[in-house]
Amino acid sequence: MIIQLDKNISNQEKQAIIIKMKELDYKTTEVTTQKGNYLVGIGKKEFDIRQVGSMKGIADVHRVSDDYKLVSRKWKVGRTAIDLGDGVIIGDGSLSIMAGPCSIENEKQVELTIQHLKANGVRMMRGGVFKPRSSPYAFRGLGIPGLKMWYEQARAAGIKIISEVMQVSQIAEMYDYVDVFQVGARNTQNFNLLDELGKVDKAVMIKRGISGTIEELLYSAEYVFSAGNEKLMLCERGIRTYEKASRNTMDINAIPILKEKTHLPIIADPSHGIGIRDFVEPVALAAVVAGADGLIYETHEKPEEAASDGQQTLNFEESENLIRKIRKVMLALQD
Amino acid sequence: MIIQLDKNISNQEKQAIIIKMKELDYKTTEVTTQKGNYLVGIGKKEFDIRQVGSMKGIADVHRVSDDYKLVSRKWKVGRTAIDLGDGVIIGDGSLSIMAGPCSIENEKQVELTIQHLKANGVRMMRGGVFKPRSSPYAFRGLGIPGLKMWYEQARAAGIKIISEVMQVSQIAEMYDYVDVFQVGARNTQNFNLLDELGKVDKAVMIKRGISGTIEELLYSAEYVFSAGNEKLMLCERGIRTYEKASRNTMDINAIPILKEKTHLPIIADPSHGIGIRDFVEPVALAAVVAGADGLIYETHEKPEEAASDGQQTLNFEESENLIRKIRKVMLALQD
Amino acid sequence: MIIQLDKNISNQEKQAIIIKMKELDYKTTEVTTQKGNYLVGIGKKEFDIRQVGSMKGIADVHRVSDDYKLVSRKWKVGRTAIDLGDGVIIGDGSLSIMAGPCSIENEKQVELTIQHLKANGVRMMRGGVFKPRSSPYAFRGLGIPGLKMWYEQARAAGIKIISEVMQVSQIAEMYDYVDVFQVGARNTQNFNLLDELGKVDKAVMIKRGISGTIEELLYSAEYVFSAGNEKLMLCERGIRTYEKASRNTMDINAIPILKEKTHLPIIADPSHGIGIRDFVEPVALAAVVAGADGLIYETHEKPEEAASDGQQTLNFEESENLIRKIRKVMLALQD
Amino acid sequence: MIIQLDKNISNQEKQAIIIKMKELDYKTTEVTTQKGNYLVGIGKKEFDIRQVGSMKGIADVHRVSDDYKLVSRKWKVGRTAIDLGDGVIIGDGSLSIMAGPCSIENEKQVELTIQHLKANGVRMMRGGVFKPRSSPYAFRGLGIPGLKMWYEQARAAGIKIISEVMQVSQIAEMYDYVDVFQVGARNTQNFNLLDELGKVDKAVMIKRGISGTIEELLYSAEYVFSAGNEKLMLCERGIRTYEKASRNTMDINAIPILKEKTHLPIIADPSHGIGIRDFVEPVALAAVVAGADGLIYETHEKPEEAASDGQQTLNFEESENLIRKIRKVMLALQD
Repeated sequence: MIIQLDKNISNQEKQAIIIKMKELDYKTTEVTTQKGNYLVGIGKKEFDIRQVGSMKGIADVHRVSDDYKLVSRKWKVGRTAIDLGDGVIIGDGSLSIMAGPCSIENEKQVELTIQHLKANGVRMMRGGVFKPRSSPYAFRGLGIPGLKMWYEQARAAGIKIISEVMQVSQIAEMYDYVDVFQVGARNTQNFNLLDELGKVDKAVMIKRGISGTIEELLYSAEYVFSAGNEKLMLCERGIRTYEKASRNTMDINAIPILKEKTHLPIIADPSHGIGIRDFVEPVALAAVVAGADGLIYETHEKPEEAASDGQQTLNFEESENLIRKIRKVMLALQD
Repeated sequence: MIIQLDKNISNQEKQAIIIKMKELDYKTTEVTTQKGNYLVGIGKKEFDIRQVGSMKGIADVHRVSDDYKLVSRKWKVGRTAIDLGDGVIIGDGSLSIMAGPCSIENEKQVELTIQHLKANGVRMMRGGVFKPRSSPYAFRGLGIPGLKMWYEQARAAGIKIISEVMQVSQIAEMYDYVDVFQVGARNTQNFNLLDELGKVDKAVMIKRGISGTIEELLYSAEYVFSAGNEKLMLCERGIRTYEKASRNTMDINAIPILKEKTHLPIIADPSHGIGIRDFVEPVALAAVVAGADGLIYETHEKPEEAASDGQQTLNFEESENLIRKIRKVMLALQD
Repeated sequence: MIIQLDKNISNQEKQAIIIKMKELDYKTTEVTTQKGNYLVGIGKKEFDIRQVGSMKGIADVHRVSDDYKLVSRKWKVGRTAIDLGDGVIIGDGSLSIMAGPCSIENEKQVELTIQHLKANGVRMMRGGVFKPRSSPYAFRGLGIPGLKMWYEQARAAGIKIISEVMQVSQIAEMYDYVDVFQVGARNTQNFNLLDELGKVDKAVMIKRGISGTIEELLYSAEYVFSAGNEKLMLCERGIRTYEKASRNTMDINAIPILKEKTHLPIIADPSHGIGIRDFVEPVALAAVVAGADGLIYETHEKPEEAASDGQQTLNFEESENLIRKIRKVMLALQD
Repeated sequence: MIIQLDKNISNQEKQAIIIKMKELDYKTTEVTTQKGNYLVGIGKKEFDIRQVGSMKGIADVHRVSDDYKLVSRKWKVGRTAIDLGDGVIIGDGSLSIMAGPCSIENEKQVELTIQHLKANGVRMMRGGVFKPRSSPYAFRGLGIPGLKMWYEQARAAGIKIISEVMQVSQIAEMYDYVDVFQVGARNTQNFNLLDELGKVDKAVMIKRGISGTIEELLYSAEYVFSAGNEKLMLCERGIRTYEKASRNTMDINAIPILKEKTHLPIIADPSHGIGIRDFVEPVALAAVVAGADGLIYETHEKPEEAASDGQQTLNFEESENLIRKIRKVMLALQD
């Protein structure tokens, strides 16, 4: 159960609601986000919600049968849009494109990527400065100095930044230089990280776990939202299956299913979804027509020389072709 | 290695090639299909193919590194088109739509379905008369009488029939009444059935196994082709994974991968691919933009009353909307 | 619901029961096996079973909530034992060992294998004469002549034969020369084959599908049983997962789960379960302590020269060591 | 390549080796652990290792073809034993049992559990005070106060403690009160956590990821070892597959495979491996005969009332029976 509170509810009124809920055998969690104040009630018994609904200080009360509550469309049917400023909005019905290299490598690379993005009307750049790598001996990214360098150029060009945060201590370090914190597939259930991201006023994109279920992804989103942050989006990036002809199996089904279950924007990552450069385009287009609110993919001046993930990275020409096709398809579906 | 033989090769010339290949430690399999005569050579040592290529009776020689040979695009780069007659061609660049109920139920159902298909320019109807069912106590289909009834109506309306064959003895029984034999997901590796289907002059569509790999699907196709039947197409219908939010996980990646690996047409089955009626449309559109040559999906006058698979079956209005959107998307991509 | 009928029930009495069941909205299937006559009732409404139980000609009535009925332990709590004659019984509390090559290759191989088995007190030999192979160009087995040759030797030595049947037409061909028909992992849901195996009076072992669920395996057993054959056992042989360090993932959990769900004997196949010769022993022992009624594994004089599956085949010394350890472990658990 | 350094190598000698390796196109990582000093060399070209081996300050040089180096058995064939003090050693050939509740709940529970363990000769107790939970609204554990309470009792009783650490900041908080830090299945690839655990002088057990590969688990171990901590063990706890008859699929194959690939002790967790109380025993026994160095399982005075995981928790009587059977089986295999 979700109880939306009046903005000017008194503490006394709030306590009265909590006590009432306790009498009804419901445990309540107080949630204060950028957009509103809520009480989330967890309990088993059904009761007439008017018993609570008529109490002072309450704006609205919703029964939510899903075990994840605040991210469910059972109470918020309309879709959440996330405004990053400067006219960059995710989830407003347009398609948000986020492109860039796997790893931030050097100034020149950032400059060329930004040129490519601007030439194609793309407003968001992706790139990693902290890289989770299976092997401890692999390149782990440029860290904060790389992020600052990138930020200087991106800010000047009006480009927004999305980048992966791997642990709690990096949140503060990265805060001033990113527009969206990305939670990677290996951290989808790093609950401490999610809790802390819930406390900041900055957009967050959570990637689905390497073999995470759709339900687990929604629960992870619930962690962030219930800790106070509504600026949330989710990302389908392929799952691990028995099939090894592709790096991952892009779960195209997850896109319409997530769109029905949650009001949060859904982003698709075709680069990781298939992991094969030549086929990123068809998978990207598939995600768009399946209903994705945005795409995040890897592009690099010379994929062959990329510090990581070159085998699934588009060059700028391929990226441009993809963007052109996406726009055609979007147009066709809008008619 | 594939050796394409001259149409008028003499038996003596053919034997000379087989002997030469044996000297080179290659085992040969003779293949005679509707379209050509081949020798498929299996061996390990590399040799200069001109040694064989210059022999009499040979039209062409191709090295094929894949372990499946005849279905590989390594020797036949162009795409195979299958002509079912009356202008119904699969794999010619247009999108082939095959729609109809899970099970053929009665005359009225067939009549209404055919009306719906004709009204929307669809030329092929799907339907099962032999139904593979997990439980022995479930409805197993109308059998040959149902197929004949269906055939009468379809023939009159100029509609082609695709229907599942479950065992060798059904091939002869069904032969006169179907245009395409469908091999179901539980029979993808029923090698005896594949062998026998290789001996008939009728198109065959092989569905990917319930958890079959892309490679296994290609090998199964090789069975049919090497037994003599080139009129072959493959179908992606979702795979079994840990995710249970959908019936299967539609492997959208398989579509571009299969299109690169084989010259055979690739059909997508969004009904089984996701298994949820409300989401068949986005998955179908995704398959189309990912490059499928055709779609096979379930539609029924009243899905709620269907004898099987109602939960993933479109009603005629939904089917019509889907067809309209497919055409828009196809048009957009052709520009 | 399972209604066990009196042996001397009259046809009239049986019809009366069927009519009564129909009135109660239950569809009945008549089942006559080697051991008994049953009516299997499928319906949704609960009713007082005494209404039926008091009718003439009924030995017993059982409610069975599982969707598979006859193979369920919900009605038959005791375990099924299968008597192959000459004192070879499967499922009587002892451990049945079935060992032998992947493929029957020649007389000498059979002779040496039988010597090995006899020297170690093993009473059953496995071997394939019809081999399901992914590629049409691979060795497909010696067929019936090979089976006859094997049979001559095995019979003389008092060794029972288990061998795979791949299609309906092979049942009659193989009938006189095998003691157990094996249904392979690719045919677990070949329902026509299962139906026909239900009609013969010969033991059947069904392997779990390559990625079959435990429930599907039980349904496949229900096909055979409901068609008339109670001499049935099931085999866990590893499932397909994302993990590629082993050929399959031996589902050790399936053994105790199957033992609880069904009264049929459960056999384990460690050779396919892990697919790596060096590790067949630990997996075999694990299956034994987990409760398997028998083991089926591959052994060959010279695994390096085996026509198929050599990489997972024990030599005779390894086989002997395994048998010795199995006996130690069995003894320890009986104390 | 692993270069074991002399204890009294001079800095100058070390630098000379690093320079030499650089000339050979090898990147070196210095590793200092509780037990030794190493240089790990990563490069592609093969060279005669005597070129390096003859340099001053080197104890030994090993070629290691695996990409994980320090945890590989390619250089250290003997097995690692971890001494926790007071005669509690893991990996010395005996079987280490670690049992206790999913969550630490209260003093009485700890007291009863310790009594049970002592009565059965068990020296290690498991229990969670920080619980990773899918839902933010679920019980998350007693935290440090609970750990301290537990520690008081365990210390007095001579019982060692293993407990899960979820984030870097908890390492210092928990340090004085645990004997083994457990890394949970959701944190197997939390590389920052692994890095930090590499810097402490306290044993670590890493659980395999929810759908982690065996190789990924070894890489995660390499993180800890290469950061300086050799007191490491790994735990198989079941993987996520399509089969839903059990909570996870215990990968019994992983036990012999890991034992061959790494010198670290391998622990098995049958409670999570199957997730069904009635079947924990057979799976535990299977793990023992498959070669596990230890078992970690859940036991509770009243599993029905446990704060978490009750459905897979043994009561004390069941736990006692399990221990008795384990000892029998161990004895049988030692003969």
